[in-house]
Amino acid sequence: MKRTVYETQAKKTLEYFEKAHIVLTDEEKASIEVSDFGLNDVENIGLQLVVYVNTDKVCAKEMVLFPGQTCPEHRHIPSYGMPGKEETFRCRYGEAYLYVEGDGKKEDIKAKIQDTTLTVFHEVILKAGEQYTILPGTQHWFQGGPDGAIVSEFSTHSTDETDIFIDERISRIPVVED
Amino acid sequence: MKRTVYETQAKKTLEYFEKAHIVLTDEEKASIEVSDFGLNDVENIGLQLVVYVNTDKVCAKEMVLFPGQTCPEHRHIPSYGMPGKEETFRCRYGEAYLYVEGDGKKEDIKAKIQDTTLTVFHEVILKAGEQYTILPGTQHWFQGGPDGAIVSEFSTHSTDETDIFIDERISRIPVVED
Repeated sequence: MKRTVYETQAKKTLEYFEKAHIVLTDEEKASIEVSDFGLNDVENIGLQLVVYVNTDKVCAKEMVLFPGQTCPEHRHIPSYGMPGKEETFRCRYGEAYLYVEGDGKKEDIKAKIQDTTLTVFHEVILKAGEQYTILPGTQHWFQGGPDGAIVSEFSTHSTDETDIFIDERISRIPVVED
Repeated sequence: MKRTVYETQAKKTLEYFEKAHIVLTDEEKASIEVSDFGLNDVENIGLQLVVYVNTDKVCAKEMVLFPGQTCPEHRHIPSYGMPGKEETFRCRYGEAYLYVEGDGKKEDIKAKIQDTTLTVFHEVILKAGEQYTILPGTQHWFQGGPDGAIVSEFSTHSTDETDIFIDERISRIPVVED
């Protein structure tokens, strides 16, 4: 990702947090993570977040999805001798479309289909105040609704680098180029 | 606690969440927990909270402390075969005064001294956006600052009923009487 793209996304992310009255320290503001999953199409396939804490046991993040922006399908596997990550998504602002294993057809979902491999279509719509717990190993992907979304994630220890993505082109850890 | 006291505290709690733009479902609004720790002095020694999630591994809560209101000193011990609770407090609104083991004298702290046994005085002041991780077994207590505080708690599994309070009069699980 080009630095200018990173900076544009990070700035928009801070505007979302401000709009939702979510307060960050200056250090956190300077450490917004923007991932384009290596696909160079961050407006459609991407995710912005700030990691509050990630101890051996507990992780908490605040994620921002812009309207129609998709975090592509993946699952969390056992890593470094620990079970796969369990995570609860709590929508704080806007609306998030979450898809997990289960009943559901691609042609019936509310989310925009973006250019990435998708295999699960059981739809969970999260409005502000609503939440859903994803058990370890469950395939899932999610997208920001018409006004985007801010989603708190409460989870066990996070090791993004071991996530298994369905789209084989994807790498999780962003590389920012000058 | 009398039901009228519970209802007054719960109503004030919802007003705080609204002021801080923290969105709850109707079900959560109806399940606000108010604890007076059995001391019948909830305005000075008490805590209000909503539990978002509490799985075997991860717990997330949103706590409200009114100005000068104190959650009395306690620690989390190993319970039901699991290690003691690890918790991160993140201040979302207002200011919280947190006290943990370490350097610090009772006469130097910013918190108001309430009528409960206190033994640790290492002061951590959390303004909105700031956070602190309390490791298992650490004695701690906390109080709302001049405008009160809303504090998110990200932790391992929570078993309030096994907490060890220093003030021997205390019971953690509230009893609401009609």
